[in-house]
Amino acid sequence: MNSFIAKSARLRSTPFSERIDAYGVQSYTVYNHMLLPASFKGVVEDYEHLKKNVQIWDVSVERQVQVKGPDASNLTQLMTCRDLSKAKDHICYYAPIVDDKGKILNDPLIMKVASDTWWISISDTDVLLYAKGLAIGKNLDVEVTEPNVNPLAVQGPKSFDLMKRIFGEEILKMKFFHFNRFLFAGHKFLIARSGWSKQGGFEIYVDNDEKGLELYDALIQKGQDLNVRPGCPNLIERIEGGLLSYGNDMDIHDTPLECGLDAFVSFNPEIKYLGKTILEKQHKEGVKRCLVGLKLKMDKISITRFIPIYSGSKKIGELRSACFSPAFQCCLGIAMVDISEQNFSSTCNLSIDGREIMTEMTKLPFIK
Amino acid sequence: MNSFIAKSARLRSTPFSERIDAYGVQSYTVYNHMLLPASFKGVVEDYEHLKKNVQIWDVSVERQVQVKGPDASNLTQLMTCRDLSKAKDHICYYAPIVDDKGKILNDPLIMKVASDTWWISISDTDVLLYAKGLAIGKNLDVEVTEPNVNPLAVQGPKSFDLMKRIFGEEILKMKFFHFNRFLFAGHKFLIARSGWSKQGGFEIYVDNDEKGLELYDALIQKGQDLNVRPGCPNLIERIEGGLLSYGNDMDIHDTPLECGLDAFVSFNPEIKYLGKTILEKQHKEGVKRCLVGLKLKMDKISITRFIPIYSGSKKIGELRSACFSPAFQCCLGIAMVDISEQNFSSTCNLSIDGREIMTEMTKLPFIK
Repeated sequence: MNSFIAKSARLRSTPFSERIDAYGVQSYTVYNHMLLPASFKGVVEDYEHLKKNVQIWDVSVERQVQVKGPDASNLTQLMTCRDLSKAKDHICYYAPIVDDKGKILNDPLIMKVASDTWWISISDTDVLLYAKGLAIGKNLDVEVTEPNVNPLAVQGPKSFDLMKRIFGEEILKMKFFHFNRFLFAGHKFLIARSGWSKQGGFEIYVDNDEKGLELYDALIQKGQDLNVRPGCPNLIERIEGGLLSYGNDMDIHDTPLECGLDAFVSFNPEIKYLGKTILEKQHKEGVKRCLVGLKLKMDKISITRFIPIYSGSKKIGELRSACFSPAFQCCLGIAMVDISEQNFSSTCNLSIDGREIMTEMTKLPFIK
Repeated sequence: MNSFIAKSARLRSTPFSERIDAYGVQSYTVYNHMLLPASFKGVVEDYEHLKKNVQIWDVSVERQVQVKGPDASNLTQLMTCRDLSKAKDHICYYAPIVDDKGKILNDPLIMKVASDTWWISISDTDVLLYAKGLAIGKNLDVEVTEPNVNPLAVQGPKSFDLMKRIFGEEILKMKFFHFNRFLFAGHKFLIARSGWSKQGGFEIYVDNDEKGLELYDALIQKGQDLNVRPGCPNLIERIEGGLLSYGNDMDIHDTPLECGLDAFVSFNPEIKYLGKTILEKQHKEGVKRCLVGLKLKMDKISITRFIPIYSGSKKIGELRSACFSPAFQCCLGIAMVDISEQNFSSTCNLSIDGREIMTEMTKLPFIK
């Protein structure tokens, strides 16, 4: 059943909310206490459009936790299992935040935006409160705040052309996961070549509401012949691309190693972070469960809670995200399964929500 | 414009979600990463029903942050400005959580549920992460977890009759803001005489999904002649009752003293909590702004973000919550205003969203 979203000031608006409403958003989700569009013309139509054109996403919900001060680097490193000791001030680092048990609390991009200042561009949990607690508890000389920064993402194959029109040729030279500052209307915007799709694009960290709106309108206006549209992170596209979603595919009960994030877990003896000894032990002994992709022979699925997966009468894991994929012509799922049940060599029958489904288990991301 | 809510596992379901859907929830909000019904038959009809009958609310979103261990009392006291040193194990304490700047991070009920165990029954922020950060940072001997507890509220004037039918005469002897354990279907439920309405009632801390569903069905079944219905916290009823909502009426930018929560701020020299010296200073010097009630001569209002309030050309504050009140036959608002503009003796014209509105400023809660 479809229900409406009840708006209130607690579900914060963004500087772009009026535009989003005017363009006719169809559904919202809530992320970091803020409204995030979830569809405009329907998830399938939005998906088809995104893969061919360019969309402007209001992803203000990607809040920045700013850690600033003499101990900023210490605190930031303490919270993440990724080695940030050689972090450069023009590169974005995907860096899981973990607790003292090695469990994932968030999976942000982290950027060193000044010599004593870090931005943790968070997924959907209050990292601000974790950072505050640690800073207070350890008596660190830092200020932890949430600045008024509201990112816009420009995503899709035509995003490069559109961004060039606004910011000039220079922006095309920026490499993936790099960031720099670019001028528009007399204001320097921090822009990264990043975004939560596999279609290419940029994220603009809007730190000035008024200039941001001006930029939003310019992006729409200058992209008319590129078939630009307001858009949003797309369920189908992100699952096809194997982009993990914190709160869906992983949460506080999982470690980065169980989620296949080994590349972002440092065992460098010089690096000190919370939960490290536990992750070292898990790394040595091997994980007991892991995230896998599932290609499910079915033509429709909708997930609103983790669904147990059975092989015969044995529970082997749980399905956490899924959708029908037009590109793969089957349903794709992301599941946490017992490591002993991991099997990439043959298809099998799995029981999901009481239905026997012919399933092919694959590594993530999915490959066609 | 009305938009739908896009469901996903990240917006967690509750043990009662299937019932809620089956009974026809009209709109949802999201609270603590979880679905919270916001209306069933419309906010006005739900309100009228609540004031005369009894409703069963799925308030699973009131998550418990469990602090357990030898240092549990220390950590819990450190986080709140309320004096918990004499806390009894059968009383609920409304106790603002503050940071080292004296700013409010949450406004939970806190219960000492065992000699070494506290439940912090939170509003909409991840107190779990704050508590974890502090515990790790200060190296405290505690375990901080979110147990699988999903509260049901039974609210409305007929809630007493209904609860008596299920739990016996004994439950009526419990005083306001007291809690105890009561038996149903062989399971002992922690039940408090509390709830986020002024219509009277109880909150049942369901720690067993299966027994909880059985209880949910029993409450509906045994309340048929009492005109029982599924319900939810009601915008109109809570504003009329002057119940503050964290994220709406107050947030991380406010102190408890600015929000009129003086009764819950301890200046006892023996009590140690974060931000105390700042709150002491503010108490001594007096606050510069404060929450007030506004009776607005208008017949319709809807708030989705803070609305600036002007007196002439001077900005004097912001309106944070508001609704039309059938009981007061005007709109009621909760606003943060400059202390110099606080005026309970005469009506005045205030400019709200560009409209001049005849306004009466009052203390909270509203009195008819």
